Amino acid sequence: MLMDAFWSEVLGTAILLLLGGGVVATVLLPKSKGFDGGWLLINFGWGLAVFAGVYVAFKSGAHLNPAVTIGLFAAGEPFYTGADGATIDPTIGNMFVYFGAEMLGAFIGAVLMFLAFKKHFDEDADPGAKLAVFSTAPGIRSYGWNLLTEIIATFVLVFWVVIQSKTPTQIGPLAVALIVVVIGTSLGGPTGYAINPARDLGPRIAHALLPIRGKGGSDWGYAWVPVVGPLIGGVVGGLVGTAYI
Amino acid sequence: MLMDAFWSEVLGTAILLLLGGGVVATVLLPKSKGFDGGWLLINFGWGLAVFAGVYVAFKSGAHLNPAVTIGLFAAGEPFYTGADGATIDPTIGNMFVYFGAEMLGAFIGAVLMFLAFKKHFDEDADPGAKLAVFSTAPGIRSYGWNLLTEIIATFVLVFWVVIQSKTPTQIGPLAVALIVVVIGTSLGGPTGYAINPARDLGPRIAHALLPIRGKGGSDWGYAWVPVVGPLIGGVVGGLVGTAYI
Amino acid sequence: MLMDAFWSEVLGTAILLLLGGGVVATVLLPKSKGFDGGWLLINFGWGLAVFAGVYVAFKSGAHLNPAVTIGLFAAGEPFYTGADGATIDPTIGNMFVYFGAEMLGAFIGAVLMFLAFKKHFDEDADPGAKLAVFSTAPGIRSYGWNLLTEIIATFVLVFWVVIQSKTPTQIGPLAVALIVVVIGTSLGGPTGYAINPARDLGPRIAHALLPIRGKGGSDWGYAWVPVVGPLIGGVVGGLVGTAYI
Amino acid sequence: MLMDAFWSEVLGTAILLLLGGGVVATVLLPKSKGFDGGWLLINFGWGLAVFAGVYVAFKSGAHLNPAVTIGLFAAGEPFYTGADGATIDPTIGNMFVYFGAEMLGAFIGAVLMFLAFKKHFDEDADPGAKLAVFSTAPGIRSYGWNLLTEIIATFVLVFWVVIQSKTPTQIGPLAVALIVVVIGTSLGGPTGYAINPARDLGPRIAHALLPIRGKGGSDWGYAWVPVVGPLIGGVVGGLVGTAYI
Repeated sequence: MLMDAFWSEVLGTAILLLLGGGVVATVLLPKSKGFDGGWLLINFGWGLAVFAGVYVAFKSGAHLNPAVTIGLFAAGEPFYTGADGATIDPTIGNMFVYFGAEMLGAFIGAVLMFLAFKKHFDEDADPGAKLAVFSTAPGIRSYGWNLLTEIIATFVLVFWVVIQSKTPTQIGPLAVALIVVVIGTSLGGPTGYAINPARDLGPRIAHALLPIRGKGGSDWGYAWVPVVGPLIGGVVGGLVGTAYI
Repeated sequence: MLMDAFWSEVLGTAILLLLGGGVVATVLLPKSKGFDGGWLLINFGWGLAVFAGVYVAFKSGAHLNPAVTIGLFAAGEPFYTGADGATIDPTIGNMFVYFGAEMLGAFIGAVLMFLAFKKHFDEDADPGAKLAVFSTAPGIRSYGWNLLTEIIATFVLVFWVVIQSKTPTQIGPLAVALIVVVIGTSLGGPTGYAINPARDLGPRIAHALLPIRGKGGSDWGYAWVPVVGPLIGGVVGGLVGTAYI
Repeated sequence: MLMDAFWSEVLGTAILLLLGGGVVATVLLPKSKGFDGGWLLINFGWGLAVFAGVYVAFKSGAHLNPAVTIGLFAAGEPFYTGADGATIDPTIGNMFVYFGAEMLGAFIGAVLMFLAFKKHFDEDADPGAKLAVFSTAPGIRSYGWNLLTEIIATFVLVFWVVIQSKTPTQIGPLAVALIVVVIGTSLGGPTGYAINPARDLGPRIAHALLPIRGKGGSDWGYAWVPVVGPLIGGVVGGLVGTAYI
Repeated sequence: MLMDAFWSEVLGTAILLLLGGGVVATVLLPKSKGFDGGWLLINFGWGLAVFAGVYVAFKSGAHLNPAVTIGLFAAGEPFYTGADGATIDPTIGNMFVYFGAEMLGAFIGAVLMFLAFKKHFDEDADPGAKLAVFSTAPGIRSYGWNLLTEIIATFVLVFWVVIQSKTPTQIGPLAVALIVVVIGTSLGGPTGYAINPARDLGPRIAHALLPIRGKGGSDWGYAWVPVVGPLIGGVVGGLVGTAYI
């Protein structure tokens, strides 16, 4: 069951990054048909990337995000409950299995996105824009405030994940997709809403490794912010959510 | 039960204002990634802020809005019915408990939003734009007509709240979210659609108190309009709704 | 039951035009916060105006549109089936009751919209833009082709209405709302998608009667197109739908 | 049953192309009210075109797309299961019946779209824009990379189709519509996301045959890419999906 969950997270997070990275590529890379398509396009693209990824990761509870995994760990909630009632329990070992799968999937998804947009990466463009397709960067660099923004935004996500079962609906993955849309519209302005360590770090590694024409540095100085902030926000969201529910 | 409902409204309204104020900050504040993102972005941001807030306030019926509370009071509908059938009845005392929670939550949400966008508030920007992130202002100032617009827009919301149970669906909070989206797209143009006294007054108080760089006045001369208008609209919506249903 | 249905259609169509006219006012009138907000804003505004109107008209089957009424008449489908199984049958008499209610509601909705945007109508603006808030006008005037576009667009709507019950979902009025969104995005470009005689004629009469500052003519030469086109499209949609199903 | 399915696919694919081609016409053709309406408008237009088409094709499983058909063939999944449990099995013969219906429907839909926008096609416009209303063209021409982009994008669609039943919801055709929206926002930038051989080839034939004023060539040199790419992506999606599920 854990091995199934591993590959489920890999596949789901790969789809997440293929589509999520893809919408940023669509907006930022030259000669793309959606060039300069606007913030709402990016918000719907990322939100629906989660929609697609959640469908794909049906064997693992569709975390797709270490902040969700660590939030459930903090909340003491099982990572996944199968149709037969068997669970993947929130142990430290299982948490690292999920972390690994999410990182691997995010890396793979970024590579697939790069391949889908290869000719557009070959065009002349600002190295910062080429990096932004992979990883987030703040509008105003200020590590402490950037960290706080990521903590708040991720708190909203993980708190919602923990409490959402109290409001049953039949819309399935659309609910979390819309939560991700609104986190983007409303809290994404300052830092580009990583809200997910794997979503940021996996593609940043891909950026560093891939032969991208005219790429600049991978901005490792900022790389800890979208890892640490979401992990803190996830833990707080899990603890507050489980206390509140 | 009432104490649970109090904190439920506080939390839900805080999330509402964090996300609703956040989308306006995203569009209006310099160096935000969604700067100048357009009206539809604001409409979806506010609508989905309601979506998130309704999930959070599952212990109180998710009013998040004194206009809804007073509308249910006017309609004689219980404020909340628990899973065990116990209700919070529409008494004057309970109404003021809800009012207090909604105001407190809106204030807290605005403060959190300010923190998430702190560095962007530090930038040079029109004081009117910085206020607009917190509170509404009319496109054309004319208290009587502005009031009427707020009455009509809030009527639509509260009337819908009262009659919506006649059309059962399984989409949960998405329904009211879409109603708020359309009130924004269609009736928000003149006054910025407060349609909620707490949504406007709580953040206006926050604006007055917070150390916002280069802020101007909090426009107290207009502040009564988005309080009185929505309360009137809520009462009329509740009464007409209950007569019609 | 028929009297209830009459007022249900009046109220529902009034909400439809208040919100549908409102989104056009938001985009076209000076100093509106959504000025120049774009076509997708208009499409979502109109689609969700239908969403709201359908909730409101729960006592009549929520036609809100003579093209739907005549389509169901052509298909021989009951106009409305109550919870007790009683029906409003598709007779000529009942059809005209629905027509009357839809026209009255559309007129009332347009007046309410005018009041909500009164100060913005007082601004200097192109008389054609002020008319466009009420009624449709073609991008390229050519009565025959404009008529054909309205027939095709209304066919899609009414055909869908007749066949949609074969695909059960639990999203309720959201389904027809999304159909209206896509008719707007995809077939609204040439004529502004009246697809509803009451939606166009009722507000056009309101435009003629209301004291709108600086208004021009009501373009009565074109007024028959968005009446006749949708009626033809509705009949064809009803007949083809019932033959296909 | 197969004859019903044939006409179901014809009708559904015709609606798909009427609405999908229509949104491109809305954005690209002069004097359309949605002229220059942006990429997100196109993405929602196409996604909701699928929404409408799936409702229409309720007698055939609503493939609307040879890539879906060949993907189900590769996966060994029945093409359609009727209410009585009877199936249309994934045989080569049935596959070609579906292919024929999808091609015919796409052609008919493109012709209807042309009629709805006839006066706008008569305006002066770039021949490439007039072709783009019918068929896709890459942002940067490079057959190999264009093919790869179409393979990846179609893989996402067909893989999702095969695995989606593991996540039951009650939103019906909205789910696949949103998947098509996100494929557009995120993977449509390089090639315009045909992801469907019939969607591209049927309208391209229509473009070649119709008397379009000032049209240029139909770009037959590129025509194989949006046929072959989606077929490959469909087969891979079907095989990987069925192995994973």
